[in-house]
Amino acid sequence: MKWIAFLLVGVAAVAGVVAFTLPASGHPDEEAAQVFVTKIPVGYRDWKLISVAHEEGNLNDIRAVLGNDEAIKAYREGKLPFPEGTIIGRIAWSYVASEENNKIFGRAQSFVAGPPTASYLQFMVKDSKKYAATGGWGFAQFDKDGKPADQAQLKTCFPCHEAIKARDFVFTRYTP
Amino acid sequence: MKWIAFLLVGVAAVAGVVAFTLPASGHPDEEAAQVFVTKIPVGYRDWKLISVAHEEGNLNDIRAVLGNDEAIKAYREGKLPFPEGTIIGRIAWSYVASEENNKIFGRAQSFVAGPPTASYLQFMVKDSKKYAATGGWGFAQFDKDGKPADQAQLKTCFPCHEAIKARDFVFTRYTP
Repeated sequence: MKWIAFLLVGVAAVAGVVAFTLPASGHPDEEAAQVFVTKIPVGYRDWKLISVAHEEGNLNDIRAVLGNDEAIKAYREGKLPFPEGTIIGRIAWSYVASEENNKIFGRAQSFVAGPPTASYLQFMVKDSKKYAATGGWGFAQFDKDGKPADQAQLKTCFPCHEAIKARDFVFTRYTP
Repeated sequence: MKWIAFLLVGVAAVAGVVAFTLPASGHPDEEAAQVFVTKIPVGYRDWKLISVAHEEGNLNDIRAVLGNDEAIKAYREGKLPFPEGTIIGRIAWSYVASEENNKIFGRAQSFVAGPPTASYLQFMVKDSKKYAATGGWGFAQFDKDGKPADQAQLKTCFPCHEAIKARDFVFTRYTP
């Protein structure tokens, strides 16, 4: 019986390797290409806050970074890498001086969130298999009308995030 | 019967006016004094995001404004005044340049949330009776150790918020 068991294990192992290395579609080139997130995650605007930031230069935005429950739990526990199913969302609004506030405060000091920027919504979705080519993260960007960015633009996400590999490719730190 | 009905209405009206103008405790001077919120609302860090802002000058912070469910519902429905039980929270972090981000981006453009500021947490709690003297809002401020600001400082809140009475004394607008 031993050789039968050995044979079965061997077959199973080979099958496993084949299943793991060959994409289901049978088009390796296509599968090796980067894949992106194509839909806005449901309910993201209700997620908890990770932190806030202001980007100057061409971006000129003020932004909030939110996370789904998996993201928030991992951040608060300081666990890396982020677990499967983690989604981190970034909302960017135009960075505008608040005339209303400044008038009341009696000094020009207040900058608030204005209309959505061109890169209004961005998401990182953790799925180690689906997005294996980009550190296990799928990237997405949508404008104010929900229109996704084109693939050429999305291909610029990972090369920059790759530099922060030590924190599982995520720039934003949680601020309590 | 008419004069009896008239008398009853008159008595009710006078009783109503008395009930409205005399505080229940019977100590008008004490009741007229401003009262403040003395405890940090439980679970505020899990609340949904209203908006973000940056204050220059002496404050030099970057901030998030969060709201409890009552606040978020009223904001999203555009309802004023805010209902009883509304709590709006403001977290202020030091406004700091991110050397880490700037190095990766190859340009100085990124400002993030640093350590808590001296006025780390602020809250507005809606209770029209308790905080009748200040537009129905109780004000609060806590430092990073949870220590409340002194009364003299809290007395400076309402005079400034009074200028935005048309929006029920709340500066921050909701940004979707």
